[in-house]
Amino acid sequence: MAHNIYDDPTFFAGYSQLDRSVHGLDGAPEWPALRALLPELQGRRVVDLGCGFGWFCRWAHAQGAARVLGFDISEQMLARARTESADAAITYVRGDLETLDLPAACFDLAYSSLALHYLKDPSALLASVHRALVPGGRLVFSTEHPIYMAPTHPAWTVDADGRKTWPLNQYLVEGQRTTAWLANGVVKYHRTIGTTLNLLIGLGFTIRHVEEWCPTAAQIDARPEWAQERERPMFLLVAAQR
Amino acid sequence: MAHNIYDDPTFFAGYSQLDRSVHGLDGAPEWPALRALLPELQGRRVVDLGCGFGWFCRWAHAQGAARVLGFDISEQMLARARTESADAAITYVRGDLETLDLPAACFDLAYSSLALHYLKDPSALLASVHRALVPGGRLVFSTEHPIYMAPTHPAWTVDADGRKTWPLNQYLVEGQRTTAWLANGVVKYHRTIGTTLNLLIGLGFTIRHVEEWCPTAAQIDARPEWAQERERPMFLLVAAQR
Repeated sequence: MAHNIYDDPTFFAGYSQLDRSVHGLDGAPEWPALRALLPELQGRRVVDLGCGFGWFCRWAHAQGAARVLGFDISEQMLARARTESADAAITYVRGDLETLDLPAACFDLAYSSLALHYLKDPSALLASVHRALVPGGRLVFSTEHPIYMAPTHPAWTVDADGRKTWPLNQYLVEGQRTTAWLANGVVKYHRTIGTTLNLLIGLGFTIRHVEEWCPTAAQIDARPEWAQERERPMFLLVAAQR
Repeated sequence: MAHNIYDDPTFFAGYSQLDRSVHGLDGAPEWPALRALLPELQGRRVVDLGCGFGWFCRWAHAQGAARVLGFDISEQMLARARTESADAAITYVRGDLETLDLPAACFDLAYSSLALHYLKDPSALLASVHRALVPGGRLVFSTEHPIYMAPTHPAWTVDADGRKTWPLNQYLVEGQRTTAWLANGVVKYHRTIGTTLNLLIGLGFTIRHVEEWCPTAAQIDARPEWAQERERPMFLLVAAQR
């Protein structure tokens, strides 16, 4: 079973106060870049893997998606999703992404935001997603960037010339990383970009877009503290097609 | 015109003493991984973009390639290639990869080892390669990994706990990097993995394999000093198909 840090009270309290929890999709700086990878949703069937508070499910429905299925492992998040993002066309289901078995050829889009790095091995899930998509269907997801996840000490340092530096190490040593982010003992799994893309290719996906997210100049103007995000990528965005 | 550091006497003298110059393909630790991405070459037509001393051209011919064309910008490297790797089926041509215009649908494989990072903009070359490949033809290349190229100070540091650390910064600031490697003033161009892959996808290539090279356990046993290569990738290997 995938580690469920989201139902840890300390983590949940902290997570609930993040911009992306308070302001929804517009509170996530990478959302415009991820949205740009999405196909037209009018009349489409969508599954959201790690739907959290249901922001994307609600948005997809507002774009005209015919049916939206949101999976998450966190009871607390689903409870809020069901309260705040309820609609007859949206179904929220508690599910463990590591053992999820989706029905075949039932979806036009599989979407996942910042969930896959919690999975020790996403192979079974991605194989299920491939089967669950119709031919031509899309998989669009974000994950923490491996550069962000890899280091033993994932925190900025200042180099001898005063520049902010990301102390990268262990990049080619894949596997578990345990960090303190909102709570102690947050378990994630580091994989290189190559490993993720080759897994998708091996399952029969065609890679359509790979983006190592960077804030735009306009975003940095509005939030100067994001300038440091140009030093190393925090998010990896991928679009693939069955 | 692409910067031609290889005809700088200091650089050439240093480069000529590297394992990969003295021992050829077997002196390059990433060669087994790159070779694994190559198609069967019997009877095939091959172009090598940045052929250097001609090691790959000679190897491809030994694998049964029907015709091998090697391009390089360095007179000195081509002179040695013509002397040491001559064969009627191999043609060496001096050419600037930034302005190279290959004939259409003439090759089954385009190969390039550690050359593309010298190009300010590889778009024109890769478009020419796409046209030059037959349908189903392969492009297989290595380049310096962007993690290796990006930093302002691309040299190991030792963190507070004694671990070797790669001081990553400026990863999302693409463009020129000037380093001292074998000679001063070596000019390279940093691009993210995403930028490189999206360029290929936009040209009509299908991505087949993406590898952030890591020495194998056997390689580290034989050369313990390579263990540090697990901390950050030095090479990016890509296979794509027209």
